[in-house]
Amino acid sequence: MKGLVVLGSTGSIGRQTLEVVRALPGRFRVVGLAAGNNLSLLEEQVCEFRPRMVYASREGDQLYARLRGLGLACRWAHPEEMVASPDVDLVMVATVGRAGLAPTLVALRSGKVVALANKEVLVMAGHLVREAARQGGGELRPVDSEHSAIWQCLWGERPEAVARLVLTASGGPFRDTPLEDLVRVTAAEALRHPTWQMGPKVTVDSATLLNKGLECIEARWFFDVPLERIDVLLHRESIVHSLVEFRDGSLKAQLSVPDMRLPIQLALTYPERAEGVGVPRVDLARLGELHFGPVDMRRYPCLSLALEAGRRGGTYPAVLSAADEVAVQHFLAGHIRFLDIAPLLEEVLAEHRGVSLPTLDEVLEADAWARARADEWVRARARRL
Amino acid sequence: MKGLVVLGSTGSIGRQTLEVVRALPGRFRVVGLAAGNNLSLLEEQVCEFRPRMVYASREGDQLYARLRGLGLACRWAHPEEMVASPDVDLVMVATVGRAGLAPTLVALRSGKVVALANKEVLVMAGHLVREAARQGGGELRPVDSEHSAIWQCLWGERPEAVARLVLTASGGPFRDTPLEDLVRVTAAEALRHPTWQMGPKVTVDSATLLNKGLECIEARWFFDVPLERIDVLLHRESIVHSLVEFRDGSLKAQLSVPDMRLPIQLALTYPERAEGVGVPRVDLARLGELHFGPVDMRRYPCLSLALEAGRRGGTYPAVLSAADEVAVQHFLAGHIRFLDIAPLLEEVLAEHRGVSLPTLDEVLEADAWARARADEWVRARARRL
Repeated sequence: MKGLVVLGSTGSIGRQTLEVVRALPGRFRVVGLAAGNNLSLLEEQVCEFRPRMVYASREGDQLYARLRGLGLACRWAHPEEMVASPDVDLVMVATVGRAGLAPTLVALRSGKVVALANKEVLVMAGHLVREAARQGGGELRPVDSEHSAIWQCLWGERPEAVARLVLTASGGPFRDTPLEDLVRVTAAEALRHPTWQMGPKVTVDSATLLNKGLECIEARWFFDVPLERIDVLLHRESIVHSLVEFRDGSLKAQLSVPDMRLPIQLALTYPERAEGVGVPRVDLARLGELHFGPVDMRRYPCLSLALEAGRRGGTYPAVLSAADEVAVQHFLAGHIRFLDIAPLLEEVLAEHRGVSLPTLDEVLEADAWARARADEWVRARARRL
Repeated sequence: MKGLVVLGSTGSIGRQTLEVVRALPGRFRVVGLAAGNNLSLLEEQVCEFRPRMVYASREGDQLYARLRGLGLACRWAHPEEMVASPDVDLVMVATVGRAGLAPTLVALRSGKVVALANKEVLVMAGHLVREAARQGGGELRPVDSEHSAIWQCLWGERPEAVARLVLTASGGPFRDTPLEDLVRVTAAEALRHPTWQMGPKVTVDSATLLNKGLECIEARWFFDVPLERIDVLLHRESIVHSLVEFRDGSLKAQLSVPDMRLPIQLALTYPERAEGVGVPRVDLARLGELHFGPVDMRRYPCLSLALEAGRRGGTYPAVLSAADEVAVQHFLAGHIRFLDIAPLLEEVLAEHRGVSLPTLDEVLEADAWARARADEWVRARARRL
C-alpha cells in the first residue's frame, strides 16, 4: 500500500482523489489530509479514511476538538511536516494559489512522488520546483488534463524527438459571445463552463483563457520545452486533451471524456493504468465530429499577457498569477467587470520590476506586492466610476 | 551505417523507402534490391545505390547482363539468401501477395529487423512469423499507417493496459455512393482513392474494405490482441491513422498527413524519429474538423468476411487473401463486377476445409487451392452470363 497525503482534500480535485482511493481498495493508505474552509467535509473524510495526520488552515482547533471527541487518534501536522513523513510515498497537491508551493518543495526534496494539480506552484517557482526534485530525487506528475495528455503522449519517446506541445482549450463559456457583448457578461455566466465542472477560480480563468497561459508556463517546466514551442489550439469538445508534435511530422494525442478522475488516477497509479473509477469510454463513431480552430487573441487578451509574462520569466509569472487571483475574486464579487481583468493584469505587470531566478522569499514578496497592487487597481477604478 | 535490403524496391512502398534512404545520407547502406516487373527502374536503382546483391523475379538474365555491361559488380541473389547475409541489419518487405512470406521468415530467423509492408505475410502465416521471430530474435516493425499508428501509441505502455485497438478507415472511393449504384462502379472509379496514393490491388481492397479486414488480422499478430478487441472506425480525412484504447478509459491516437514516407522512415530509424523526408505537419487549426463514424457492414460485406476468416484462423485468412487477389485481378480486367468480389470470397471460404496451425507448405497449398477455386468461380460466372 502506498502512503498518500492529500493537500486540499475538500476541493474538487481533492474529493475526486478520494474517489480514486475508494475505487482502488488496498492500494493506498491515506496518511494525511489537509483542507481550507470546508471543515464539516474534512471531518467526514477523516472519519472515513482515518489519516494519521490532519490539518485545517482555518478554525483547526475547533475541528481538532471534535475529532478527539469522536475518539479519532489523528495528530495535528502542518502540510510541510505531513509530506516529509517517512510513511508517505505520494502527495496530491490539490490546493489553489500559493498554498501548495512550500509543501511541494518539501515533498520533492524528501524524494516523494508529487501529483501536482495546483497550477500556481510551477507558474510561480518552476525553477525552484525542478531544483528541489533534482536535489531530493522526488518525482513530479501532472494532474491537469492537458499536462496528463502530454505526459501520456511522451511515454516511450525521446526528449529530442519533440517538436512542439499543443495544448487544447475549449474556449470557455464566451467562445461564441460577440466581442462587443463581453463588456456585459456576469459572474454567473462566466461560471457556466461548456465542458468541465471545476472550481470558480479555474472556471473564470477558462473564460479569459488566462488558465491556458498558466498551463503553457506549467508545461514549460513539466516537460522542459521552451514556450516558443508550445501552442494553444481551440477544441470545443474537450475530448482531445492535448497533443505532442514530433520532429518527423507525427503527432500523438490523448483523448477521453472530460473527467478529472482519469488523470488523477493515472498520476497515482503510474506506470499502471487501472480500471478503478471506471471512466466512461469515448465513442468517436457516435460523437461524429471533433472541431479545432485557432485562438483569436483579440478575444483572449489575458492569454497574450500570460504568455508574455512566461517569456519574461523570473517573478513575472508569479505576479500575473497573484494579480489574477485578486482580479477574479473582485469579478466574482461584482466589484469589476469581466473586461477589467486584462487591463488590471496588464498594468500590474507593467509596473512590476522583475527579479530573475528569484528565491522563494523573492517569489512570495512579488506575489504579495502583486496582490496589493491589484487591490489598489480595483479601489482606484471604484473611485473613478 | 545499417545494412538494408529492400524487397519490392520498384513498387510504391519500395520507391518511398529509397526516398527515405536518400533523405538520410550516411545512415543506410543498400545491400540488396529485389523487384518484380519494372526492370528499367530496378536498373536505375542499382546504378544509384550500388547494392552488393540484386534480384528480379522476371527476365533477370537480361537485367543481369545489362548491369555487367555497365560494369556494376553486383551479384545475383535470391531474396531468401539476401536477407540472411551477415551485413544486413534491416529488411524492408515491400512485396505484395505471398512473395514476402518466405524471406520474412528467413530474415526473422536470422535475427534481422523486418519492416513489414506486405500485408499478406501476417495474414497468411501470423503464427509462423511470430515463431520465427521468437526463434531467431528477429524484430518485426509495422509500415502500414494504421499499424505504425498503433505501434507509436503503444510505446511506453504495458501490454495489460490495452483494452482495444481502433483501426481507422477512410471508407474508400465508394463511401458515399448509394448502395444501389455499387453494381455499376468501374475499375477506374475504384482506383480513385479519396486520401491515399497506393498500388491498384490495395486501392480496390480499400474500396471493398477487405483491406481493413486484413489489417485487423495483421494487428492481431503484430500486437497480440485478439480480433474481438479490434474495432474499425470510419474516418474520412485519413489524419488519425489509428487509436489505442486503454483500460482506464484513456485513448491515444497518432495523427499525420497521409504520407507513407513517415511510417516507412520510422520503421527504419526507430527508436529515433528523424526529420529526414520532411513530411508536412498537420495543421489542425486550419483543418477545422475531423469526422468519425461507424462502419456500415451492408456497404462492406468483404470486411465481415475477412473478420470471420480471421476469427476462424488456421488457413482461412490465407484462402481469403489469395481468393481476393484473384478476384481483384479479374475485376480490374473487367471480367467481374465490383459487387461480385464478396460473393466470390464467400463461396471460396465456404468450400474451404481449414487446417489449424498450418505449416508453411499447408499455407501455400491452401493459397494455391483458393486461387484455382477463385479462377473457376470467374469462369463459371462467365458461362452463366
